[in-house]
Amino acid sequence: MWQLYQFPLCPFSRKVRLLLGEKGVGYELVRESPWQRRDEFLDMNPAGQTPVMVDEERGVLLVDSMAISEFFEETVEKSAMINGTAVGRAEIRRLVTWFDTHFYQDVTGPLLHERMVKRVARTGSPDAKGLREAMKAAVGHLDYTDYLLDHRNWLGGATMSLADLAAAAQISVADYLGGIDWKGHEQTARWYRGLKSRPSFRPLLSERMEMVTPPSHYDNVDF
Amino acid sequence: MWQLYQFPLCPFSRKVRLLLGEKGVGYELVRESPWQRRDEFLDMNPAGQTPVMVDEERGVLLVDSMAISEFFEETVEKSAMINGTAVGRAEIRRLVTWFDTHFYQDVTGPLLHERMVKRVARTGSPDAKGLREAMKAAVGHLDYTDYLLDHRNWLGGATMSLADLAAAAQISVADYLGGIDWKGHEQTARWYRGLKSRPSFRPLLSERMEMVTPPSHYDNVDF
Repeated sequence: MWQLYQFPLCPFSRKVRLLLGEKGVGYELVRESPWQRRDEFLDMNPAGQTPVMVDEERGVLLVDSMAISEFFEETVEKSAMINGTAVGRAEIRRLVTWFDTHFYQDVTGPLLHERMVKRVARTGSPDAKGLREAMKAAVGHLDYTDYLLDHRNWLGGATMSLADLAAAAQISVADYLGGIDWKGHEQTARWYRGLKSRPSFRPLLSERMEMVTPPSHYDNVDF
Repeated sequence: MWQLYQFPLCPFSRKVRLLLGEKGVGYELVRESPWQRRDEFLDMNPAGQTPVMVDEERGVLLVDSMAISEFFEETVEKSAMINGTAVGRAEIRRLVTWFDTHFYQDVTGPLLHERMVKRVARTGSPDAKGLREAMKAAVGHLDYTDYLLDHRNWLGGATMSLADLAAAAQISVADYLGGIDWKGHEQTARWYRGLKSRPSFRPLLSERMEMVTPPSHYDNVDF
């Protein structure tokens, strides 16, 4: 049985969990708080980040959310999520990087730092300026997803792909932390409602991070 | 003919160029200075980063160095660089992310900012503290590559892979900018000498960035 080291609001673990859900791969959750920099966890992943996946019986250790995603894409045929032509797959991977790095750096990362880590690790109170900038950046990012969805059925092309899962993972964490203003982003909201109603997404929406409460619309599929 | 938008010290473009060199894929260099945020370039890549590859005849646009690498790995059989078992490929991809994100954030990024961008864009003089921290981080990173090379022939396993190309790309830029102290890193130095002598690497070593001069050992294969 796979074990997945994560915490409820880790967007990279959420991307992997959505992929595993779509592919029907079973796993057990192991709670890890990477900001504590636990020695045993750093031994598994010197980068100190979640997700990490372990299959003890087979002696397999997988580190880094993109490496993990590519691994399951290669080994589990069901529900291909890096699909289509080579050019189409390049576009999917471009967008995964876009959400994993730019959306995370601009939006999810600052929100997590200000609204979760500072509270859980008791290292201070949220910085209003940092929060304002993250929420402003979120508007720009949803403008971009609106634009993509004006031209395509799904973010990466004609079918659902890892690009959608990566985007939904980041957006769901930002939404939990009150960082998303859905007004004026009807295209993205419609796409997100569709994803929220999938069986792979439901378990994520019902989980809570201690000491941090989401807004009331967070787990509502018809928000 | 592929066009590759880059500048001489872009580590991500270097990774792609090493891969294209190993695979024997021809391309034309197009000079791009991403810090100028040129409109036409942002239209191609909203992330504003090099490398970007274009094949105008076929109407193909490839963005993001990992998406580009996976594209050529999928479409050009020669010299597989994400090779081996699924678990082995996951390890290669983990290390590519390690060098692309952690080595870059800790070492290459700060060095580029302090020693190149500030000079070329005339936005100030290098900050001594930032440089010291980057060079100290480089020592820690080379300790890690030494450790990997104590256990493996190449960084990612038994054969040369994209992990080696990603690492050499970052290290070569840091070395150009005087950020690498080779003393005490004999394992990594030996591995790097081997890479430097490859035909795919030679063109990179002979290029110069205007206004920034490398140390004398930079392009010496027997440094």
